[in-house]
Amino acid sequence: MLDEYYMNMAIDLAKKGIGKVNPNPLVGAVIVRDSEILSCGYHKGFGEYHAEREAINSAKVSLEGATIYVNLEPCCHHGKTPPCTDVIIESGIKKVVIGSLDPNLLVAGKGVKLLENAGIEVVCGVLEDECNKLNQVFFNYINKEKPYIILKYAMTMDGKIACYSGKSQWITGKIARNKVHEDRKKYMAIMVGIGTVLSDDPTLNCRCEDPVHPIRIICDSNLRIPIKSNIVKTSNDYKTIIVTKSKDVKKIKELEEYGCQILQQTNDGDSINLKSLIVELGKMGIDSIVIEGGSGLNWSALNSNIVDKVQIYIGNKIFGGLNAKSPVGGSGIENPNKAFNLSRPEITILGDDILLESEVFGCLQE
Amino acid sequence: MLDEYYMNMAIDLAKKGIGKVNPNPLVGAVIVRDSEILSCGYHKGFGEYHAEREAINSAKVSLEGATIYVNLEPCCHHGKTPPCTDVIIESGIKKVVIGSLDPNLLVAGKGVKLLENAGIEVVCGVLEDECNKLNQVFFNYINKEKPYIILKYAMTMDGKIACYSGKSQWITGKIARNKVHEDRKKYMAIMVGIGTVLSDDPTLNCRCEDPVHPIRIICDSNLRIPIKSNIVKTSNDYKTIIVTKSKDVKKIKELEEYGCQILQQTNDGDSINLKSLIVELGKMGIDSIVIEGGSGLNWSALNSNIVDKVQIYIGNKIFGGLNAKSPVGGSGIENPNKAFNLSRPEITILGDDILLESEVFGCLQE
Repeated sequence: MLDEYYMNMAIDLAKKGIGKVNPNPLVGAVIVRDSEILSCGYHKGFGEYHAEREAINSAKVSLEGATIYVNLEPCCHHGKTPPCTDVIIESGIKKVVIGSLDPNLLVAGKGVKLLENAGIEVVCGVLEDECNKLNQVFFNYINKEKPYIILKYAMTMDGKIACYSGKSQWITGKIARNKVHEDRKKYMAIMVGIGTVLSDDPTLNCRCEDPVHPIRIICDSNLRIPIKSNIVKTSNDYKTIIVTKSKDVKKIKELEEYGCQILQQTNDGDSINLKSLIVELGKMGIDSIVIEGGSGLNWSALNSNIVDKVQIYIGNKIFGGLNAKSPVGGSGIENPNKAFNLSRPEITILGDDILLESEVFGCLQE
Repeated sequence: MLDEYYMNMAIDLAKKGIGKVNPNPLVGAVIVRDSEILSCGYHKGFGEYHAEREAINSAKVSLEGATIYVNLEPCCHHGKTPPCTDVIIESGIKKVVIGSLDPNLLVAGKGVKLLENAGIEVVCGVLEDECNKLNQVFFNYINKEKPYIILKYAMTMDGKIACYSGKSQWITGKIARNKVHEDRKKYMAIMVGIGTVLSDDPTLNCRCEDPVHPIRIICDSNLRIPIKSNIVKTSNDYKTIIVTKSKDVKKIKELEEYGCQILQQTNDGDSINLKSLIVELGKMGIDSIVIEGGSGLNWSALNSNIVDKVQIYIGNKIFGGLNAKSPVGGSGIENPNKAFNLSRPEITILGDDILLESEVFGCLQE
């Protein structure tokens, strides 16, 4: 019970790094002796000290015989900073309690072994599920070298993302909309199709307390994005990547002058290849993308089998309308037994609205 | 605590009457003295003894000084059976614990007063919400003289009721589908549009343990129903009402010979007037209807402002498809601020699926 208590504290500390550490993991550490908390720390930002070192450095007393709680296995390799295992061993700490093992299978368990060889007691797997969930994005990135892709949409209780007129404000209430902005902080990038830019002229920034703005990725095969759009106008303030198949040198130059980064896809076909795109974005260090597409992009993303998770906000309203759009368009599947199967949804109640979150299982299309 | 315990027992007994008492209420009664249960009873079917009399009659000992728990205020009028208040007073029972007061505002509280005047202690409102919910249909029927209308549909997590091909089996799993059949037992009638009959050729009977089949109501303005459809073929087994604007005497006669009842609507316009229809169905003693329509009937029902509650089953699948149907069609509303507003949904988890149930608030269309 006490182990869980301190591990929860480490998780809460880790979360202070949300939006600042990507593509590093969120890590918090708590040092305790005789039920007294001696020191705490967390990973504050990409390139900064690891949580263990933060906690050890900020201790005001000797740590001889103390226990450290940390949600992720301490590193044992020389990266941007020296290995945490060394720092722990030197500190006099006698017990290490760990949540998740290192997700990198080449390294997993090595830190534990090094600590044990130094005579330190190690306990693994405390609140393991919670710790794994905390770093879902990081674990995915380390293992697949691709960003974790969340498909997010808000729909009515009759499955509409807009009225037949195209009007959609608002489907959900404030609590749900705030959660969307918290997620823009949590995940590194946001992706929309050009259709959304043309119809809604969004800014796609993060509007919440202590905001961290996501990188904006616009899928725009024919480079139709208006120079006067809010996206282009604010591209000096928020990093913007426009993905296109167009070779319009003049417009590309103009957009670059505004501050946009242009990613030209040269593969065959008229439409953007999302599968190779996300590999490329992964190489650029992007560990997570929320797709807030219209129904066309949503279908393309699912059909390309790049979606890891769906996030579905359901507002307690009904719009009706044979011609009102539903969240996933495209051709669709022909037979229910070929449907995209999802995990049993996790349910979060957000005021009058509901959020369903499911992992997307291997697509049956392939 | 003990009061709640025995009232819960009365509620459980009352539920044994599901499907058999309509349009009467579900009532259970438990008689207790010194923590010993002396007798139980419930209303077993339309026209049969009330729960209080059932319990009192089946007691094997004197009830002198006992307490009776009953989820609905005992009746004090001479209906099909003598008033329950008389039976209670004569039995020697000294305390009556009630869940709901009589919903008929002309009678509510009269039973309580009669009992109190006879020197019996009365406690009201124990598990009142649960008791009111148990008899939601009855309460609605007594006060409005109209059936309680449930709009039910199953959709995918992207708001589809079928693939673009029209195929829809299955969106939800067995647990959810069983619940649908339990509800066919619970509610008196089921309504579909002719489109559903033509595309799915359903039977619309109740397939569960101890089945009670609903009255089948088919909205069929032009009397297109095929004589060879399962509905017509089984209309001697299950009561069937076909609502039409057609004056095709020959087909009407033929359908009647098969056992169908024809309701001809003579009002203006091409389509069936659902508002006057449900008043008529109410007069026929139908206290509840589940609409399992296609998207056209669903919209008409909502737009006619006859729907009391929506029941939305969500299967953990995605179909996609610009041309795949979503649950509510028709013209739809133009602006989100004119949407049909629903109460905060009640959530039931049914295996991998979710059931959302909301009351429909006054429609903003009117």
